[in-house]
Amino acid sequence: MRYRLYYWPGIQGRGEFVRLALEYAGAEYVDVLRRSGATGFPKKFTPFAMPYLVAGKRVLSQTANILLYLGPRLRLAPRAEAGRLWAHQLQLTIADWLAEVHDSHHPIASGLYYEEQRREAKRRAADFVAHRLPKYLDYFQGVMRRSGGPWLLGRSLAYPDLSLFQMVAGLRYAFPRGMASLERRYACIISLHDRVAAHPRLAAYFASPRRIPFNRMGIFRHYPELDAAGNKPKKT
Amino acid sequence: MRYRLYYWPGIQGRGEFVRLALEYAGAEYVDVLRRSGATGFPKKFTPFAMPYLVAGKRVLSQTANILLYLGPRLRLAPRAEAGRLWAHQLQLTIADWLAEVHDSHHPIASGLYYEEQRREAKRRAADFVAHRLPKYLDYFQGVMRRSGGPWLLGRSLAYPDLSLFQMVAGLRYAFPRGMASLERRYACIISLHDRVAAHPRLAAYFASPRRIPFNRMGIFRHYPELDAAGNKPKKT
Repeated sequence: MRYRLYYWPGIQGRGEFVRLALEYAGAEYVDVLRRSGATGFPKKFTPFAMPYLVAGKRVLSQTANILLYLGPRLRLAPRAEAGRLWAHQLQLTIADWLAEVHDSHHPIASGLYYEEQRREAKRRAADFVAHRLPKYLDYFQGVMRRSGGPWLLGRSLAYPDLSLFQMVAGLRYAFPRGMASLERRYACIISLHDRVAAHPRLAAYFASPRRIPFNRMGIFRHYPELDAAGNKPKKT
Repeated sequence: MRYRLYYWPGIQGRGEFVRLALEYAGAEYVDVLRRSGATGFPKKFTPFAMPYLVAGKRVLSQTANILLYLGPRLRLAPRAEAGRLWAHQLQLTIADWLAEVHDSHHPIASGLYYEEQRREAKRRAADFVAHRLPKYLDYFQGVMRRSGGPWLLGRSLAYPDLSLFQMVAGLRYAFPRGMASLERRYACIISLHDRVAAHPRLAAYFASPRRIPFNRMGIFRHYPELDAAGNKPKKT
Protein backbone atom coordinates (compact mmCIF):
# COMPACT_ATOMS: atom_id res chain seq x y z
CA MET A 1 0.00 0.00 0.00
CA ARG A 2 1.33 3.42 -0.98
CA TYR A 3 -0.19 5.96 1.38
CA ARG A 4 -0.78 9.59 0.56
CA LEU A 5 -0.65 12.06 3.44
CA TYR A 6 -2.15 15.54 3.15
CA TYR A 7 -0.98 18.15 5.64
CA TRP A 8 0.18 21.75 5.80
CA PRO A 9 3.61 21.72 4.16
CA GLY A 10 5.36 24.21 6.48
CA ILE A 11 4.82 22.67 9.91
CA GLN A 12 5.10 19.40 11.80
CA GLY A 13 1.73 19.91 13.46
CA ARG A 14 -0.69 17.02 13.76
CA GLY A 15 0.65 15.49 10.53
CA GLU A 16 3.89 14.63 12.29
CA PHE A 17 2.16 12.04 14.48
CA VAL A 18 1.18 10.18 11.30
CA ARG A 19 4.58 10.71 9.66
CA LEU A 20 6.37 9.19 12.65
CA ALA A 21 4.30 6.01 12.39
CA LEU A 22 4.89 5.75 8.63
CA GLU A 23 8.61 6.46 8.95
CA TYR A 24 9.15 4.08 11.86
CA ALA A 25 7.42 1.28 9.98
CA GLY A 26 9.30 2.02 6.75
CA ALA A 27 5.95 2.43 4.96
CA GLU A 28 5.77 3.80 1.46
CA TYR A 29 4.08 7.20 1.48
CA VAL A 30 3.92 10.52 -0.31
CA ASP A 31 3.69 13.74 1.67
CA VAL A 32 1.56 15.21 -1.07
CA LEU A 33 1.50 18.92 -0.30
CA ARG A 34 5.25 19.03 0.26
CA ARG A 35 6.00 17.87 -3.28
CA SER A 36 6.79 20.86 -5.44
CA GLY A 37 3.85 21.77 -7.56
CA ALA A 38 1.38 19.74 -5.56
CA THR A 39 -1.85 21.59 -4.95
CA GLY A 40 -5.35 20.80 -3.88
CA PHE A 41 -7.02 18.04 -1.99
CA PRO A 42 -8.92 14.89 -2.85
CA LYS A 43 -12.08 16.31 -4.38
CA LYS A 44 -14.55 13.62 -3.48
CA PHE A 45 -14.16 14.19 0.25
CA THR A 46 -14.23 17.24 2.46
CA PRO A 47 -12.76 16.53 5.87
CA PHE A 48 -13.10 19.03 8.67
CA ALA A 49 -9.36 19.53 8.95
CA MET A 50 -6.03 18.05 7.89
CA PRO A 51 -4.20 15.74 8.27
CA TYR A 52 -5.88 13.22 6.09
CA LEU A 53 -4.61 10.01 4.71
CA VAL A 54 -5.56 8.44 1.41
CA ALA A 55 -5.18 4.64 1.48
CA GLY A 56 -6.42 3.12 -1.76
CA LYS A 57 -10.08 4.10 -1.98
CA ARG A 58 -10.25 5.28 1.61
CA VAL A 59 -9.83 8.81 2.87
CA LEU A 60 -9.40 9.12 6.62
CA SER A 61 -9.06 12.16 8.81
CA GLN A 62 -8.63 12.95 12.51
CA THR A 63 -5.08 12.08 13.55
CA ALA A 64 -6.07 9.50 16.17
CA ASN A 65 -8.47 7.86 13.74
CA ILE A 66 -5.74 7.62 11.08
CA LEU A 67 -3.47 5.94 13.62
CA LEU A 68 -6.28 3.62 14.71
CA TYR A 69 -6.47 2.51 11.09
CA LEU A 70 -2.71 2.32 10.50
CA GLY A 71 -1.79 0.71 13.82
CA PRO A 72 -2.40 -2.96 13.04
CA ARG A 73 -1.42 -2.52 9.37
CA LEU A 74 2.00 -1.12 10.30
CA ARG A 75 2.42 -3.58 13.20
CA LEU A 76 2.34 -0.66 15.60
CA ALA A 77 -0.66 -1.79 17.64
CA PRO A 78 -1.89 -5.05 19.17
CA ARG A 79 -4.13 -7.21 17.00
CA ALA A 80 -6.76 -7.95 19.64
CA GLU A 81 -9.56 -5.44 20.14
CA ALA A 82 -8.79 -4.76 23.80
CA GLY A 83 -5.21 -3.80 23.01
CA ARG A 84 -6.20 -1.69 20.03
CA LEU A 85 -8.74 0.26 22.09
CA TRP A 86 -6.20 0.77 24.86
CA ALA A 87 -3.61 2.14 22.42
CA HIS A 88 -6.27 4.38 20.92
CA GLN A 89 -7.37 5.63 24.34
CA LEU A 90 -3.79 6.69 25.07
CA GLN A 91 -3.62 8.41 21.68
CA LEU A 92 -6.82 10.35 22.40
CA THR A 93 -5.33 11.58 25.67
CA ILE A 94 -2.26 12.72 23.73
CA ALA A 95 -4.61 14.53 21.32
CA ASP A 96 -6.19 16.38 24.27
CA TRP A 97 -2.74 17.27 25.54
CA LEU A 98 -1.68 18.55 22.12
CA ALA A 99 -4.80 20.73 21.89
CA GLU A 100 -3.82 22.29 25.21
CA VAL A 101 -0.32 22.97 23.87
CA HIS A 102 -1.90 24.77 20.91
CA ASP A 103 -4.15 26.82 23.13
CA SER A 104 -1.24 27.85 25.35
CA HIS A 105 -0.29 30.32 22.59
CA HIS A 106 -3.77 30.69 21.07
CA PRO A 107 -6.19 30.80 24.02
CA ILE A 108 -8.70 33.12 22.36
CA ALA A 109 -8.97 32.22 18.68
CA SER A 110 -7.03 30.15 16.17
CA GLY A 111 -8.01 32.77 13.59
CA LEU A 112 -6.15 35.59 15.36
CA TYR A 113 -2.39 36.11 15.50
CA TYR A 114 -0.47 35.25 18.63
CA GLU A 115 0.33 38.93 19.08
CA GLU A 116 -3.40 39.63 19.33
CA GLN A 117 -3.76 37.29 22.30
CA ARG A 118 -0.37 37.49 23.98
CA ARG A 119 -1.70 38.76 27.28
CA GLU A 120 -4.17 35.88 27.56
CA ALA A 121 -1.52 33.42 26.35
CA LYS A 122 0.75 34.39 29.24
CA ARG A 123 -1.92 33.41 31.74
CA ARG A 124 -2.84 30.20 29.97
CA ALA A 125 0.76 29.10 29.38
CA ALA A 126 1.60 29.69 33.03
CA ASP A 127 -1.27 27.44 34.05
CA PHE A 128 -0.29 24.88 31.43
CA VAL A 129 3.30 24.60 32.68
CA ALA A 130 2.36 24.70 36.35
CA HIS A 131 -0.61 22.33 36.34
CA ARG A 132 -1.53 20.63 33.08
CA LEU A 133 1.93 19.58 31.93
CA PRO A 134 2.75 17.70 35.18
CA LYS A 135 -0.74 16.14 35.14
CA TYR A 136 -0.20 14.63 31.69
CA LEU A 137 3.39 13.59 32.44
CA ASP A 138 2.28 11.94 35.70
CA TYR A 139 -0.40 10.06 33.84
CA PHE A 140 1.85 8.67 31.13
CA GLN A 141 4.59 7.81 33.59
CA GLY A 142 1.96 5.93 35.60
CA VAL A 143 0.90 4.03 32.48
CA MET A 144 4.49 2.95 31.86
CA ARG A 145 4.94 1.84 35.44
CA ARG A 146 1.79 -0.25 35.38
CA SER A 147 2.65 -1.82 32.01
CA GLY A 148 6.08 -2.80 33.31
CA GLY A 149 7.71 -0.97 30.37
CA PRO A 150 9.83 -0.28 28.52
CA TRP A 151 6.95 1.03 26.35
CA LEU A 152 3.50 2.35 27.17
CA LEU A 153 1.83 -0.96 26.33
CA GLY A 154 4.59 -3.09 27.81
CA ARG A 155 7.18 -5.04 25.88
CA SER A 156 6.34 -3.86 22.36
CA LEU A 157 6.50 -0.38 20.92
CA ALA A 158 3.16 0.90 19.64
CA TYR A 159 2.20 4.12 17.88
CA PRO A 160 1.38 6.03 21.11
CA ASP A 161 5.05 5.66 22.06
CA LEU A 162 6.01 7.56 18.91
CA SER A 163 3.45 10.24 19.77
CA LEU A 164 4.74 10.53 23.33
CA PHE A 165 8.25 10.98 21.91
CA GLN A 166 6.88 13.82 19.76
CA MET A 167 5.24 15.48 22.76
CA VAL A 168 8.54 15.51 24.65
CA ALA A 169 10.46 16.81 21.62
CA GLY A 170 7.92 19.54 20.99
CA LEU A 171 7.59 20.56 24.63
CA ARG A 172 11.37 20.82 24.94
CA TYR A 173 11.35 23.19 21.96
CA ALA A 174 8.40 25.26 23.20
CA PHE A 175 9.08 25.31 26.94
CA PRO A 176 12.81 24.66 27.49
CA ARG A 177 12.77 26.18 30.98
CA GLY A 178 9.51 24.54 31.98
CA MET A 179 10.65 21.14 30.80
CA ALA A 180 14.13 21.46 32.34
CA SER A 181 12.54 21.98 35.73
CA LEU A 182 10.28 18.92 35.30
CA GLU A 183 12.29 16.30 33.47
CA ARG A 184 14.15 14.81 36.40
CA ARG A 185 10.79 13.60 37.76
CA TYR A 186 9.94 11.75 34.56
CA ALA A 187 12.92 9.54 33.85
CA CYS A 188 10.78 6.77 32.28
CA ILE A 189 9.31 9.16 29.73
CA ILE A 190 12.67 10.76 28.89
CA SER A 191 14.15 7.29 28.43
CA LEU A 192 11.30 6.42 26.04
CA HIS A 193 11.97 9.64 24.12
CA ASP A 194 15.66 8.81 23.81
CA ARG A 195 15.04 5.25 22.64
CA VAL A 196 12.61 6.41 19.96
CA ALA A 197 15.05 9.11 18.81
CA ALA A 198 17.82 6.51 18.45
CA HIS A 199 15.84 4.08 16.32
CA PRO A 200 17.79 3.73 13.04
CA ARG A 201 14.92 4.55 10.65
CA LEU A 202 13.77 7.47 12.76
CA ALA A 203 17.32 8.78 13.28
CA ALA A 204 17.67 8.79 9.49
CA TYR A 205 14.33 10.56 9.17
CA PHE A 206 15.29 13.24 11.71
CA ALA A 207 18.55 13.87 9.83
CA SER A 208 16.70 14.19 6.51
CA PRO A 209 14.90 17.19 5.00
CA ARG A 210 11.64 15.26 5.42
CA ARG A 211 11.63 16.28 9.09
CA ILE A 212 10.40 19.88 9.14
CA PRO A 213 12.12 21.88 11.91
CA PHE A 214 9.98 23.17 14.76
CA ASN A 215 9.00 26.76 14.07
CA ARG A 216 6.64 29.53 15.17
CA MET A 217 3.90 28.50 12.77
CA GLY A 218 3.36 25.06 14.27
CA ILE A 219 1.55 23.73 17.32
CA PHE A 220 4.71 23.73 19.46
CA ARG A 221 5.98 27.31 19.53
CA HIS A 222 8.74 28.88 21.51
CA TYR A 223 7.94 32.31 22.89
CA PRO A 224 10.30 33.11 25.79
CA GLU A 225 7.58 35.07 27.59
CA LEU A 226 5.41 31.92 27.76
CA ASP A 227 8.17 29.67 29.09
CA ALA A 228 8.12 30.49 32.76
CA ALA A 229 9.44 27.60 34.81
CA GLY A 230 7.06 26.60 37.54
CA ASN A 231 5.01 29.82 37.35
CA LYS A 232 1.61 29.80 38.91
CA PRO A 233 -1.24 31.24 36.84
CA LYS A 234 -2.02 34.76 37.92
CA LYS A 235 -5.46 35.85 38.94
CA THR A 236 -6.96 38.68 36.92
CA MET B 1 -24.12 -7.06 29.36
CA ARG B 2 -24.79 -4.73 32.27
CA TYR B 3 -22.61 -1.66 31.81
CA ARG B 4 -21.38 0.58 34.60
CA LEU B 5 -20.81 4.24 33.75
CA TYR B 6 -18.66 6.48 35.95
CA TYR B 7 -19.12 10.20 35.57
CA TRP B 8 -19.52 13.36 37.68
CA PRO B 9 -22.98 13.05 39.19
CA GLY B 10 -24.04 16.72 38.93
CA ILE B 11 -23.59 17.45 35.22
CA GLN B 12 -24.40 16.07 31.78
CA GLY B 13 -20.88 16.78 30.52
CA ARG B 14 -19.09 14.22 28.43
CA GLY B 15 -20.90 11.38 30.18
CA GLU B 16 -24.13 12.40 28.48
CA PHE B 17 -22.81 11.32 25.08
CA VAL B 18 -22.44 7.81 26.46
CA ARG B 19 -25.77 7.93 28.32
CA LEU B 20 -27.62 8.88 25.13
CA ALA B 21 -26.26 5.81 23.33
CA LEU B 22 -27.13 3.50 26.22
CA GLU B 23 -30.62 5.00 26.65
CA TYR B 24 -31.42 4.96 22.92
CA ALA B 25 -30.40 1.34 22.66
CA GLY B 26 -32.31 0.36 25.80
CA ALA B 27 -29.10 -1.04 27.25
CA GLU B 28 -28.87 -2.09 30.87
CA TYR B 29 -26.53 0.22 32.75
CA VAL B 30 -25.84 1.72 36.15
CA ASP B 31 -24.83 5.37 36.45
CA VAL B 32 -22.63 4.45 39.39
CA LEU B 33 -21.77 7.78 40.97
CA ARG B 34 -25.39 8.97 40.85
CA ARG B 35 -26.58 6.13 43.06
CA SER B 36 -26.87 7.32 46.61
CA GLY B 37 -23.95 6.18 48.64
CA ALA B 38 -21.84 5.30 45.63
CA THR B 39 -18.27 6.43 46.02
CA GLY B 40 -14.94 5.76 44.48
CA PHE B 41 -13.73 4.37 41.23
CA PRO B 42 -12.56 1.03 39.92
CA LYS B 43 -9.30 0.60 41.76
CA LYS B 44 -7.36 -1.45 39.28
CA PHE B 45 -7.40 1.27 36.66
CA THR B 46 -6.55 4.96 36.70
CA PRO B 47 -7.94 6.74 33.66
CA PHE B 48 -6.89 10.27 32.86
CA ALA B 49 -10.44 11.58 33.19
CA MET B 50 -14.06 10.48 33.38
CA PRO B 51 -16.27 9.26 31.82
CA TYR B 52 -15.29 5.67 31.96
CA LEU B 53 -17.25 2.60 31.26
CA VAL B 54 -16.88 -0.79 32.90
CA ALA B 55 -18.01 -3.62 30.63
CA GLY B 56 -17.32 -6.98 32.21
CA LYS B 57 -13.57 -7.09 32.74
CA ARG B 58 -12.93 -4.08 30.55
CA VAL B 59 -12.54 -0.49 31.66
CA LEU B 60 -12.63 2.08 28.86
CA SER B 61 -12.22 5.81 28.95
CA GLN B 62 -12.22 8.71 26.47
CA THR B 63 -15.79 9.36 25.36
CA ALA B 64 -15.17 8.70 21.67
CA ASN B 65 -13.31 5.50 22.50
CA ILE B 66 -16.21 4.28 24.66
CA LEU B 67 -18.60 4.94 21.77
CA LEU B 68 -16.25 3.21 19.33
CA TYR B 69 -16.53 0.14 21.56
CA LEU B 70 -20.27 0.42 22.17
CA GLY B 71 -21.27 1.31 18.61
CA PRO B 72 -21.46 -2.14 17.02
CA ARG B 73 -22.57 -3.77 20.30
CA LEU B 74 -25.58 -1.44 20.61
CA ARG B 75 -26.29 -1.57 16.87
CA LEU B 76 -25.45 2.12 16.67
CA ALA B 77 -22.63 1.84 14.15
CA PRO B 78 -21.98 -0.04 10.90
CA ARG B 79 -20.36 -3.46 11.22
CA ALA B 80 -17.78 -3.00 8.47
CA GLU B 81 -14.49 -1.30 9.37
CA ALA B 82 -14.87 1.56 6.88
CA GLY B 83 -18.23 2.58 8.33
CA ARG B 84 -17.04 2.23 11.92
CA LEU B 85 -14.03 4.46 11.24
CA TRP B 86 -16.22 7.02 9.49
CA ALA B 87 -18.65 7.17 12.44
CA HIS B 88 -15.69 7.48 14.80
CA GLN B 89 -14.14 10.26 12.72
CA LEU B 90 -17.38 12.24 13.01
CA GLN B 91 -17.42 11.61 16.76
CA LEU B 92 -13.86 12.90 17.11
CA THR B 93 -14.83 16.10 15.32
CA ILE B 94 -17.74 16.47 17.76
CA ALA B 95 -15.23 15.96 20.60
CA ASP B 96 -13.13 18.83 19.22
CA TRP B 97 -16.24 20.97 18.97
CA LEU B 98 -17.24 20.18 22.55
CA ALA B 99 -13.77 21.11 23.83
CA GLU B 100 -14.19 24.49 22.14
CA VAL B 101 -17.56 24.93 23.87
CA HIS B 102 -15.85 24.25 27.20
CA ASP B 103 -13.08 26.72 26.47
CA SER B 104 -15.58 29.43 25.50
CA HIS B 105 -16.18 29.90 29.25
CA HIS B 106 -12.82 28.58 30.46
CA PRO B 107 -10.24 29.92 27.99
CA ILE B 108 -7.42 30.25 30.53
CA ALA B 109 -7.59 27.32 32.94
CA SER B 110 -10.07 24.61 33.84
CA GLY B 111 -8.76 24.90 37.41
CA LEU B 112 -9.89 28.53 37.79
CA TYR B 113 -13.44 29.79 38.23
CA TYR B 114 -15.29 31.36 35.34
CA GLU B 115 -15.29 34.66 37.19
CA GLU B 116 -11.50 34.61 37.18
CA GLN B 117 -11.39 34.46 33.38
CA ARG B 118 -14.56 36.30 32.37
CA ARG B 119 -12.77 38.98 30.38
CA GLU B 120 -10.93 36.40 28.30
CA ALA B 121 -14.10 34.31 28.00
CA LYS B 122 -15.94 37.21 26.40
CA ARG B 123 -13.35 37.39 23.65
CA ARG B 124 -13.21 33.66 23.11
CA ALA B 125 -16.99 33.19 23.16
CA ALA B 126 -17.45 35.98 20.63
CA ASP B 127 -15.03 34.26 18.28
CA PHE B 128 -16.68 30.90 18.93
CA VAL B 129 -20.16 32.14 18.01
CA ALA B 130 -18.98 34.21 15.05
CA HIS B 131 -16.56 31.76 13.46
CA ARG B 132 -16.24 28.32 15.01
CA LEU B 133 -19.90 27.51 15.53
CA PRO B 134 -20.85 28.13 11.88
CA LYS B 135 -17.77 26.20 10.75
CA TYR B 136 -18.83 23.09 12.66
CA LEU B 137 -22.49 23.43 11.67
CA ASP B 138 -21.51 23.87 8.00
CA TYR B 139 -19.40 20.76 8.21
CA PHE B 140 -22.07 18.51 9.70
CA GLN B 141 -24.75 19.86 7.41
CA GLY B 142 -22.44 19.06 4.49
CA VAL B 143 -21.98 15.51 5.80
CA MET B 144 -25.76 15.02 5.91
CA ARG B 145 -26.18 16.39 2.39
CA ARG B 146 -23.53 14.07 1.01
CA SER B 147 -24.92 11.04 2.84
CA GLY B 148 -28.37 11.72 1.44
CA GLY B 149 -29.78 11.75 4.98
CA PRO B 150 -31.83 11.60 7.01
CA TRP B 151 -28.92 10.74 9.34
CA LEU B 152 -25.21 11.57 9.24
CA LEU B 153 -24.31 8.16 7.84
CA GLY B 154 -27.35 7.95 5.56
CA ARG B 155 -30.38 5.79 6.13
CA SER B 156 -29.56 4.45 9.60
CA LEU B 157 -29.12 6.34 12.82
CA ALA B 158 -25.69 5.91 14.40
CA TYR B 159 -24.22 7.18 17.65
CA PRO B 160 -22.80 10.42 16.14
CA ASP B 161 -26.42 11.43 15.41
CA LEU B 162 -27.19 11.25 19.13
CA SER B 163 -24.09 13.33 19.85
CA LEU B 164 -25.06 15.92 17.25
CA PHE B 165 -28.48 16.14 18.90
CA GLN B 166 -26.72 16.81 22.21
CA MET B 167 -24.57 19.55 20.67
CA VAL B 168 -27.68 21.36 19.39
CA ALA B 169 -29.49 20.95 22.73
CA GLY B 170 -26.50 22.21 24.69
CA LEU B 171 -25.73 25.08 22.34
CA ARG B 172 -29.35 26.25 22.51
CA TYR B 173 -29.05 26.32 26.30
CA ALA B 174 -25.67 28.07 26.34
CA PHE B 175 -26.07 30.47 23.41
CA PRO B 176 -29.81 31.04 22.82
CA ARG B 177 -29.23 34.29 20.92
CA GLY B 178 -26.30 32.95 18.95
CA MET B 179 -28.19 29.80 17.95
CA ALA B 180 -31.41 31.67 17.14
CA SER B 181 -29.52 33.76 14.61
CA LEU B 182 -27.95 30.68 13.02
CA GLU B 183 -30.57 27.94 13.06
CA ARG B 184 -32.47 28.89 9.92
CA ARG B 185 -29.34 28.09 7.91
CA TYR B 186 -29.10 24.57 9.32
CA ALA B 187 -32.52 23.03 8.78
CA CYS B 188 -31.10 19.51 8.26
CA ILE B 189 -29.36 19.57 11.61
CA ILE B 190 -32.37 20.99 13.45
CA SER B 191 -34.54 18.31 11.86
CA LEU B 192 -32.10 15.65 13.07
CA HIS B 193 -32.24 17.15 16.57
CA ASP B 194 -36.04 17.06 16.58
CA ARG B 195 -36.24 13.47 15.36
CA VAL B 196 -33.81 12.29 18.04
CA ALA B 197 -35.73 14.21 20.73
CA ALA B 198 -38.98 12.52 19.66
CA HIS B 199 -37.65 8.96 19.80
CA PRO B 200 -39.84 7.12 22.34
CA ARG B 201 -37.06 5.76 24.55
CA LEU B 202 -35.20 9.07 24.52
CA ALA B 203 -38.36 11.12 25.12
CA ALA B 204 -38.96 8.95 28.19
CA TYR B 205 -35.38 9.48 29.28
CA PHE B 206 -35.61 13.26 28.89
CA ALA B 207 -38.78 13.28 31.00
CA SER B 208 -37.12 11.20 33.73
CA PRO B 209 -34.86 12.27 36.60
CA ARG B 210 -32.06 10.35 34.88
CA ARG B 211 -31.58 13.34 32.55
CA ILE B 212 -29.66 15.93 34.57
CA PRO B 213 -30.75 19.47 33.65
CA PHE B 214 -28.22 21.75 31.99
CA ASN B 215 -26.55 23.95 34.60
CA ARG B 216 -23.63 26.27 35.20
CA MET B 217 -21.32 23.50 36.33
CA GLY B 218 -21.40 21.61 33.05
CA ILE B 219 -19.68 22.02 29.70
CA PHE B 220 -22.61 23.91 28.19
CA ARG B 221 -23.14 27.00 30.35
CA HIS B 222 -25.38 29.97 29.86
CA TYR B 223 -23.81 33.29 30.74
CA PRO B 224 -25.76 36.10 29.04
CA GLU B 225 -22.59 38.14 28.57
CA LEU B 226 -21.09 35.36 26.42
CA ASP B 227 -24.15 34.95 24.22
CA ALA B 228 -23.67 37.75 21.72
CA ALA B 229 -25.43 36.94 18.47
CA GLY B 230 -23.14 37.29 15.51
CA ASN B 231 -20.50 39.30 17.37
CA LYS B 232 -17.05 39.52 15.90
CA PRO B 233 -14.13 38.89 18.23
CA LYS B 234 -12.58 42.13 19.37
CA LYS B 235 -8.91 42.89 18.97
CA THR B 236 -6.99 43.65 22.13
